[in-house]
This record gives sequence, structure tokens and C-alpha cells, in this order.
Amino acid sequence: MTPGKHGKHTFSPQEFNTRMDNCGLSLKMKDCLNRVVAFHSSPAPGVLIGSFMVDLALELLGAVPGEKLYGVCETPKCAPDALQVIANITTGNNRLRIIPIGKFAMTVNAATTNPTAEAVRVYIDLEKLKRYPVIDTWYANSPAFDKPTMAIQLQEEIFRAGRDILSFERVRVGVSGKRQWKSLTCPCCGDTIPDYLFEQDRCGGCGSMKYYEKIS
Amino acid sequence: MTPGKHGKHTFSPQEFNTRMDNCGLSLKMKDCLNRVVAFHSSPAPGVLIGSFMVDLALELLGAVPGEKLYGVCETPKCAPDALQVIANITTGNNRLRIIPIGKFAMTVNAATTNPTAEAVRVYIDLEKLKRYPVIDTWYANSPAFDKPTMAIQLQEEIFRAGRDILSFERVRVGVSGKRQWKSLTCPCCGDTIPDYLFEQDRCGGCGSMKYYEKIS
Repeated sequence: MTPGKHGKHTFSPQEFNTRMDNCGLSLKMKDCLNRVVAFHSSPAPGVLIGSFMVDLALELLGAVPGEKLYGVCETPKCAPDALQVIANITTGNNRLRIIPIGKFAMTVNAATTNPTAEAVRVYIDLEKLKRYPVIDTWYANSPAFDKPTMAIQLQEEIFRAGRDILSFERVRVGVSGKRQWKSLTCPCCGDTIPDYLFEQDRCGGCGSMKYYEKIS
Repeated sequence: MTPGKHGKHTFSPQEFNTRMDNCGLSLKMKDCLNRVVAFHSSPAPGVLIGSFMVDLALELLGAVPGEKLYGVCETPKCAPDALQVIANITTGNNRLRIIPIGKFAMTVNAATTNPTAEAVRVYIDLEKLKRYPVIDTWYANSPAFDKPTMAIQLQEEIFRAGRDILSFERVRVGVSGKRQWKSLTCPCCGDTIPDYLFEQDRCGGCGSMKYYEKIS
């Protein structure tokens, strides 16, 4: 982990580890948090809470190390990185879906050949959050949360709370299979793309999804 | 890295490393590939090529270790994981955008306070690919590519090719700032979400983005 900026305070891996020790975190949880923070490149509160969420979800599922799992994260903010690092549910391996509902919640299930899967949904429980006023203030994006002076306090409260701000429910989610495709050439740029991504007569890069300009 | 299934052949980390050695890969590139493959949880051809793409992009940008970078990946398949692991451009830290055009290409830029950024776009060059018939056949999703018998051959060709199938261009991309938001309570589920994610009178989870059913 390289030192970096987090908000207005400089992040010190050593202080971060001491803080985890002081809050009584297990070796396993410390290892998870260190790996997630290094990947995320900052100890953002959301990745810390997200790590406790993934840890709980894996335990509820009885998942074994290396097991192929699938997940949905209900926000693109921070939490997906915990799923990616701890459970290898990644954007690139097509096991992670982001459904941007804006909730700090995630659903995890084991691989299945059925069209639906039983999954566990872990979420921040607003009732339980009331017992942790700093997290509560931060989570509500309240002006009362002052990042420069309260970031450390927030981190400690997150470590002390652990799973104590989380609840879960058993749910059923849909499962989608691999899409079949053929390679087609875009007549505008000459690149090949999967047929199902064609927009009328061209690729999305020459159509509605153009996002860059060449610098001549 | 734990052994796992990749297609029809069992993945052996030891054989994977021997193969990289035999193809003359540098220690740095081997380290990148091992970390990306462990994260992705398989040595899928796309993450291998994606790793060479990220390596080239970072060199072209003159990026220093730990530098804050942003990226666009033009496909959700495999390649994003190379950006995530090697450059800490992740889904959860909001530095990674997936624009699903279906191209094996990525754009990387340094942090800036300007509304646009100069970036480097690295892509698979179809002309250059002709010199590597196994990769070419795989990339075209041709029926001539037989995964069970050709997976190893493909891997070796990717290692030997390295950057030799890639080209790049300098481009300009838009930069978006952090969105301001207030916390609002959904009257249906009682959860709080950012105001800008409200759908008319409710959250997306109670509206158009519902994706699970509770198991009673």
C-alpha cells in the first residue's frame, strides 16, 4: 500500500493498522481491509464498510475459498471494490453487476445452472446505524459531518461497529447466461465488434457512445 | 493464485509461470500478469492482452507508481480487470468508466482539474493481428478457434506478441466532477438514497431497477 491522500488527511498505512488493532479487528479482517484499501487506493469509509458486508455475505453463504460467486452491488460507490478484492466478483470477469439504486447494499450468490439463484442480501440497517452517530452523520451526507476533523473518528467507529450496523435477508435473483455473438465490421471505423452491439449501421463508438476526439 | 477451471483445461499457476518464462516475459510483466489473473480468477486471454495494454498506456503517459489515473474501457469483458489491478483505476473508486462499444480498447489519462484531459488510447490493431493467426481467430470469435485444443497455443501467442498487436493514439476525453447530493428517504422501502437517483416518487429499487424477490 502506498501512502496517498484521503480527503484532507494523508493516509498512513501504519496508523491505519494500529487503529485496526486498537479496535480489536481479527487478523483475517485486517488482511481483507488492507488488500481492499490498497486496491481502492484510499481507506474510504465505503470500502471499509463494504469489506465487512462481503465478509458477512460469504459467511452466510458458507462460501469456500476460491468458490465461484456472483454479486450485485446497489451502488457504484466504493462497495464494489470490496466484492472484487475479497470475493473475486469482478467487473471484468462478468460476475459483478452494478445496479445503481443508490443503496449501500449487495447481493451475493453461488454459481448455478438454474435460471434463478438463492442469494443473500446484506445492507446497512438505518435503525442500527443510530447507535453509531458519526457513521450515521457521514452516511446521511449531513453538513454536520466535517471530513477534515472527523475522518479518523469515522474510521474508528466503522472498525468498532463491524457487522453491528448490517442486516441481511435471503432473496432470489435472476441469472443470465453467456451471450452468443458473431464478429461484425463497422463500416465507419473498420473495427470489429460483437453483432449485438451494433447501432443501426455502425458501432457505438461511431454512434451514440463516442467519447473522445483525436488529437491531431 | 488458486488453481481453477478455465474453459475445459485446469489452470496450473506453475505451468502458467513456466510458459511466461519460455516466452521471455520480463519479471515486471510476469508480476502484473500473475496479479491480474489471480484477481480475475482465470487466465482468460482478454486479461492477458489487457495487461499488455495497460502496461503500454502507463509508459506512454509517463505515469509514476501510485499516480492517480482515470480510464475508460470500451468493453466490460476482461480488460477492465487489468486497469483495476495494475493502475488502480477501479469500479469502486470512480476512476473507471465502462463504455460498452464492444472494442478491445482503453483510454487512460492523468488527473486534471480541467474539463477535458489529454489521454492515450490503446487498442488491438486488426492489421497487426494478422501476424498472429491464433489470436486473430480467437478475437474474431471464429468457429475455427477450438478452445479445448488451442487455449495453450493462444496463451503462448499472446505472450510472444506482447505489445506487437497493439497500436495507440493521443485523444482528448471529457472529465466529470463529483456530483453533489442530498439524502432522501424512499416512501416505499424507507431506505435513504441520493436525491438524483429518485425515480418520480420512489427509489430505483422500488421502481424500474428491482432485481430480487424476498424469500419468505
